[in-house]
Amino acid sequence: MASTLQETTERAGSNRDLGLIDRKSMIHPFTPLRTFSDGETGGPVVVDRGSGAWIETADGRRLLDGFAGLYCVNIGYGRPEMAEAIAAQAGKLAYYHAYAGHTSEPAALLAERILEMAPANMRRVFFGLSGSDANDTQVKLVWFYNNILGRPTKKKIIARERGYHGATVMASSLTGMRFYHEGFDAPSGPVLHTTVPHHYWGAEPGMDEAGFVAKCVADLEALIAREGADTIAAFIGEPVLGTGGLIPPPAGYWPAIQAVLRRHDILLIADEVVCGFGRVGHNFGCDAYGIEPDLITVAKGLTSAYLPLSAAIVGERVWSVLEQSSDARGPFAHGYTYSAHPTCAAAGLANLDVIARENLIERVAEFAPQFQAAFQDAFAGHPHVGEVRGTGMLAAIEFVADRDSKRRFDLSEKIGARLSAAALEGGLITRSMPHGDILGFAPPLVIDTNDLDFMIEKTKSAIASVFPGV
Amino acid sequence: MASTLQETTERAGSNRDLGLIDRKSMIHPFTPLRTFSDGETGGPVVVDRGSGAWIETADGRRLLDGFAGLYCVNIGYGRPEMAEAIAAQAGKLAYYHAYAGHTSEPAALLAERILEMAPANMRRVFFGLSGSDANDTQVKLVWFYNNILGRPTKKKIIARERGYHGATVMASSLTGMRFYHEGFDAPSGPVLHTTVPHHYWGAEPGMDEAGFVAKCVADLEALIAREGADTIAAFIGEPVLGTGGLIPPPAGYWPAIQAVLRRHDILLIADEVVCGFGRVGHNFGCDAYGIEPDLITVAKGLTSAYLPLSAAIVGERVWSVLEQSSDARGPFAHGYTYSAHPTCAAAGLANLDVIARENLIERVAEFAPQFQAAFQDAFAGHPHVGEVRGTGMLAAIEFVADRDSKRRFDLSEKIGARLSAAALEGGLITRSMPHGDILGFAPPLVIDTNDLDFMIEKTKSAIASVFPGV
Repeated sequence: MASTLQETTERAGSNRDLGLIDRKSMIHPFTPLRTFSDGETGGPVVVDRGSGAWIETADGRRLLDGFAGLYCVNIGYGRPEMAEAIAAQAGKLAYYHAYAGHTSEPAALLAERILEMAPANMRRVFFGLSGSDANDTQVKLVWFYNNILGRPTKKKIIARERGYHGATVMASSLTGMRFYHEGFDAPSGPVLHTTVPHHYWGAEPGMDEAGFVAKCVADLEALIAREGADTIAAFIGEPVLGTGGLIPPPAGYWPAIQAVLRRHDILLIADEVVCGFGRVGHNFGCDAYGIEPDLITVAKGLTSAYLPLSAAIVGERVWSVLEQSSDARGPFAHGYTYSAHPTCAAAGLANLDVIARENLIERVAEFAPQFQAAFQDAFAGHPHVGEVRGTGMLAAIEFVADRDSKRRFDLSEKIGARLSAAALEGGLITRSMPHGDILGFAPPLVIDTNDLDFMIEKTKSAIASVFPGV
Repeated sequence: MASTLQETTERAGSNRDLGLIDRKSMIHPFTPLRTFSDGETGGPVVVDRGSGAWIETADGRRLLDGFAGLYCVNIGYGRPEMAEAIAAQAGKLAYYHAYAGHTSEPAALLAERILEMAPANMRRVFFGLSGSDANDTQVKLVWFYNNILGRPTKKKIIARERGYHGATVMASSLTGMRFYHEGFDAPSGPVLHTTVPHHYWGAEPGMDEAGFVAKCVADLEALIAREGADTIAAFIGEPVLGTGGLIPPPAGYWPAIQAVLRRHDILLIADEVVCGFGRVGHNFGCDAYGIEPDLITVAKGLTSAYLPLSAAIVGERVWSVLEQSSDARGPFAHGYTYSAHPTCAAAGLANLDVIARENLIERVAEFAPQFQAAFQDAFAGHPHVGEVRGTGMLAAIEFVADRDSKRRFDLSEKIGARLSAAALEGGLITRSMPHGDILGFAPPLVIDTNDLDFMIEKTKSAIASVFPGV
């Protein structure tokens, strides 16, 4: 390793300003371009190392990562068994492609293991790198499915307002948030959006959860009637909405929705990128809500982000049709150079080994009541808290100017951003979610009671500093 | 590492059939679905390890990889310094996100290094995972650029017939090959395709290269006139066409094309996924052909595929406009969870260290004449060879039924596939390229004269076995 690291170390020598190098070289997601580049906004934050639920910055700050990166480092940072498994595969066969029937041991074993963990009737795994590219694969699969069935007009995809499905041109079109669309001509393609199942904001006055589910169903039925079921191929949704605000579905939502989809012969794609592999105390979010998907998208928790890996999991209904393509059409004409990347697959196997060995999914199920109660007890009574919600090890606090009228704060007050900045000052990373003044929490699944106490305490202090008189 | 590898090893125990596991679990790119799954087509080929230009299968075959994976393992297999650099970063900080101004040392240093290697006037780097997602980023950047400039209708992208740009919904739409489109409703979105610059097939009888370039220019001008320059945002092309058949441009093509684009204020995106980082004996294909791109896409050679990593490189013309978005629009609303992945960036740095230390790009430039001459000398005179072409360490042999009339073989004869299968029998991996009966060669940049001799000899034997009487 000597000369490689030596060269790199020389480039990063102590008399060079890594922050300046970064600002003059890199475009960051969700960062203002000129003001960051010119140093006006401060930063970058150089993250240097991590261990368990904690990260350390290059300037020596130690921070509890209450959002597990982007809810992805589920097994926590700095696992030596992960680095070792990655190194072992990288040393033996870092890469070979999976085209034309080529495979590697870790890729084949990981595909099998995913199917073992997945809901019933899942049949095959197609590997990609990111949730975005896996959702692109799902759209292509759904279109291919209907083309094989001779239904060339059944192609539209229904997604949901405030759903998040990624950032490619197609995936960002599925995403149902204005600021992902503005400036980028999204949504493009045959994408429709239906009602977000968020009772707090969406229910009419006096409407209970059952009534609100009926409204969501009626809205979906009306959309299908307007467009024509014979034009609609699939519905895509996260079992629990993620970036849209960490919103668990109202009781009965998923069974009611999927009954509509079945009746109209519309496929159901479960985007499990956030929920999959333990985040909500089950293997998949589908298991928690009685969802019977036709296709499942996974990423994040599959490797705990140690390396990039995603998958589109294909269920019986779709696979049995795709299979028929062989004779008439020959090879399946879709794939990425890095599909089934051996080293990334080895990271996936090692990650699932950690999850199994430490019973992390069962642990989430056991810890979740304490985790959820801690947020409820600490914050639900605050005069500026409209809703505390969550499930598993996902929690959100939504702030409003007035609880009774549900009046929002003016955007210019930037309440969410100020709250997360104040928490960061105290040593806690939370996420100011984009759709409202929402603080989001999704820590590594390995946090202990002390970590939880720290999260609650630092969040309390942050709220007190932003609302000093309250 | 003990228990992780132990569990994995138990799963892969010698009494389990890895091939069967693979066939019943995974969907492979460009592999027939049912017939592969049912074992009718044979396979999978389980690749077990690699060293230099050679790979070894689980059943003990040693093969010279004449296509470097998918022209990506440029520095060759089994580099210990790569595994060590990957392990070091994975142990320290495998992952943190790059959102909201966060960074890591390897990501910042790699972005700087890419800009140092890139053509003049490149200003910023946006990281993704695959060439596909980077081309999606390019399309979003181009649309954003024209939205900032107040030109909401200037959005179409011109790609080329037989161009290859990836496999997402948008990237496969840019790709100009029928079999990537059929069944998947591509191209979708505002994508146009213009003439492929392949003199052998595209030139009219008696037309020289200059005349053919004039035809390509006239075709492009006619397309722009038909659509209206005010509707066209960008032109995307590979400096040397890759999957479309390994086709170097005719002399003068790129300067002539980019003059047209400049005149109509159309951005030029250079897709350098194959050419970048040494494949054609220069840092970039742009350097070889006098291309002055506004945006550059890189992937493959950036890490030699040891880990997935791609980048959209943004030049001055685009960056100076994007910068203006900060004040009016706030944060740049595009990004992937794994953008600027620290471990993948560390692999990129280590790979560029190898390339620099071993002068691999200069080596390609020096070796290329011998490499190209070997293919010309051995195959150009064969009665069924229509064209031998190439540049740097890319070479293609195109087979025809009749040289004089350029009559193609009937598709049902599967000449290309039979030739690559015969070469494989002899221990040589070549690629039967999809657009005609074309054998493609793009070995690791580290092959030596013995390896080249082996490639030539085994290709000769393959040709002799498929055309025994000739």
